[in-house]
Amino acid sequence: MTSGFEEMWRELAPVGRATQSGGYFRQPWTGAEGELRAWFAEQAHARGLTLESDGLGNQVAWWRPEGATGRHVLTGSHLDSVLDGGAYDGPLGVVSALAALDRLRGQGHAPTRPIGIAVFVEEEGSRFGLATLGSRLVTGATTWAQVRERRDRDGVRLEDAVARAGLGLAGDDATWPDLVDATHAYVELHVEQGRHLVDRAAPVGVATGIWPHGRYRFDFAGEANHAGTTRMEDRHDPMLTYAMTALAANKQARLASQRATFGRVEVQPNGTNAVPSHVTAWLDARAESAEHLAAMVGEIERQAADRAGRDGTALTVTPESVSAAVEFDATLSRRIAAGDDARADWPLLPTQAGHDAGILAEAGVPTAMLFVRNPTGVSHSPDEHAETVDCLAGVDALAGTLARLTSDPA
Amino acid sequence: MTSGFEEMWRELAPVGRATQSGGYFRQPWTGAEGELRAWFAEQAHARGLTLESDGLGNQVAWWRPEGATGRHVLTGSHLDSVLDGGAYDGPLGVVSALAALDRLRGQGHAPTRPIGIAVFVEEEGSRFGLATLGSRLVTGATTWAQVRERRDRDGVRLEDAVARAGLGLAGDDATWPDLVDATHAYVELHVEQGRHLVDRAAPVGVATGIWPHGRYRFDFAGEANHAGTTRMEDRHDPMLTYAMTALAANKQARLASQRATFGRVEVQPNGTNAVPSHVTAWLDARAESAEHLAAMVGEIERQAADRAGRDGTALTVTPESVSAAVEFDATLSRRIAAGDDARADWPLLPTQAGHDAGILAEAGVPTAMLFVRNPTGVSHSPDEHAETVDCLAGVDALAGTLARLTSDPA
Repeated sequence: MTSGFEEMWRELAPVGRATQSGGYFRQPWTGAEGELRAWFAEQAHARGLTLESDGLGNQVAWWRPEGATGRHVLTGSHLDSVLDGGAYDGPLGVVSALAALDRLRGQGHAPTRPIGIAVFVEEEGSRFGLATLGSRLVTGATTWAQVRERRDRDGVRLEDAVARAGLGLAGDDATWPDLVDATHAYVELHVEQGRHLVDRAAPVGVATGIWPHGRYRFDFAGEANHAGTTRMEDRHDPMLTYAMTALAANKQARLASQRATFGRVEVQPNGTNAVPSHVTAWLDARAESAEHLAAMVGEIERQAADRAGRDGTALTVTPESVSAAVEFDATLSRRIAAGDDARADWPLLPTQAGHDAGILAEAGVPTAMLFVRNPTGVSHSPDEHAETVDCLAGVDALAGTLARLTSDPA
Repeated sequence: MTSGFEEMWRELAPVGRATQSGGYFRQPWTGAEGELRAWFAEQAHARGLTLESDGLGNQVAWWRPEGATGRHVLTGSHLDSVLDGGAYDGPLGVVSALAALDRLRGQGHAPTRPIGIAVFVEEEGSRFGLATLGSRLVTGATTWAQVRERRDRDGVRLEDAVARAGLGLAGDDATWPDLVDATHAYVELHVEQGRHLVDRAAPVGVATGIWPHGRYRFDFAGEANHAGTTRMEDRHDPMLTYAMTALAANKQARLASQRATFGRVEVQPNGTNAVPSHVTAWLDARAESAEHLAAMVGEIERQAADRAGRDGTALTVTPESVSAAVEFDATLSRRIAAGDDARADWPLLPTQAGHDAGILAEAGVPTAMLFVRNPTGVSHSPDEHAETVDCLAGVDALAGTLARLTSDPA
């Protein structure tokens, strides 16, 4: 007897949850994430699925019944969270995939292709600052040599964090090239992170693509000094340069209907009675096209540099990751979205959020995404929510999609 | 054979110093501060001084030769630092006091009163957020009950930090009321933290008083959300409210020739791809009078609240400590500053920095401060500096002052 959707959801609820906020801290290669990995292995085992994983902790559970041959269909998502994140972003895709597989089996579906349920690690980049790290290494979009020396906020190297979790990579190529090469299609289900589906009164939608997206580190260097005795006109205070830059970023994004956010700031020495010596802040920027993105970030940087000149501070901007626009497979997406007698078409919508599906699409895998309605649009927050009835509609949609993709001769 | 000024300075140089910045991390009840306390005890022992301390770690080394009777003269300063601070702020007063005592003895001075050299703990408030904590508890300006539950950034309670350092308080009164009651005068030598003495071409000056000073915690509450998918107009981003407030504080202080600084900021969850849920920032504000201080802080708070209304965020302002203006003992200060045949008068100047001397003055002790020239004015920074020749002039000035204060019949 395997767990149903709601039971699986209850099993995951306490893992990595902060008592105070109710939010989740499921950073990769930590205790909470280890529990999640073990939970997924148990789910695979209970269903008689074959579990495979790579040295980084990416996992795939395989259903390969007799008659399922050739290139496989992959679904899944991730189980890690942002700091103080919500329950749905990631886990909804994994739990829905397991529930959809149960439904297909219950219906007696005989797939023509193997079906794999994937869990990718460090999708959020919340620990090592590079989002979709797991799928990047699976596909070879990023190499181990490029990232193994990255450090988390406590100074722990990525390589050491992976080793401490009992895992480890050898070599420097893609960690799982066979997985990518043999994928007929990848379909990821995800909670929506905006309110398009609310506006359209639809429980489920299909993504058309992902906006280009970049993370840029802004280093503002000034001169530490005494907050009491240093005259205002003698200061070189990088906090002021940063403050103006945060406001400028917001204004530019508003003007252009794009997105720009400074959500992370680190101050040195961060003492109440000291003018700071350094402020480091990270800009998250997204736009509908690469040109719009470059123009917006360029304008923010220009205004920041102007202000640095007036404050007597120095500015360095380092792009930490810039992802191109992703177009999902249009044929596949339309096929998923198209209604039949029983339902109307599901709406097609773009997204501003990065996903492992974007990395697989860039690696040449025909890829699509299903979104489940989010009543408030809130995500990356303890308040992130989806109604169970919509989640179950998502399971239906995913099961139907997997059935269609594994009904043709392989 | 006891260490001279320059030798003592060399002994202190490596303690708590960060390799990268060259700055000091001498937070109270840590390893570095324990070394400093042990060093001071050794210095006292080598000079045959009697060492006393309270349960918090405040120390006094006594010179009580025959003929020294009645109320004592106290000098000294502190050995803790701000985060990534300079070498001079605090230690210069302690080292100069020991060197001045050596000089008096070398000159055969027979003091009519005991002379004590004090080291007060947590003067900077860098760990538990309340400056001059040691002298406040010595005098009873603050009670143990009011502060024992305070926590440092790692959540360690003050009471536990003190206990882990092998110290501990019993009861709730002033930790050292006898010390205060029996003080004839307190003279603290300190590196200047501005450029008044540079402007006046004087190696040494005398402080007239301390500006009123406050620390105010600004809590900005918004709504965590996804940095990519949340439209700019749907956000309640407390980072924006904070950024505007930091700029407003700077502007108000400039307009009024006062001081206002946001040097410490903490962001929740502080993730690159999340609109923050909370920003907490600390305002350090100082002005020439209590009225000016209240007016400036009130205007900053008003502008912050206005902006919070526009951002859809909520603002709470909590004064964490507000210190009234301090006037040092005018007769004592003029007596110290007045020139004799050998030198011109030392300049009298106000200061914007809090000091243990301010706490003792408020407790009714006749108090004065000597400042030593700072060629750049930079303080609370690894770049803080004073020339050795000026430091030695400071030792001379302090020795002369102590000689005069212990030459009258006690």
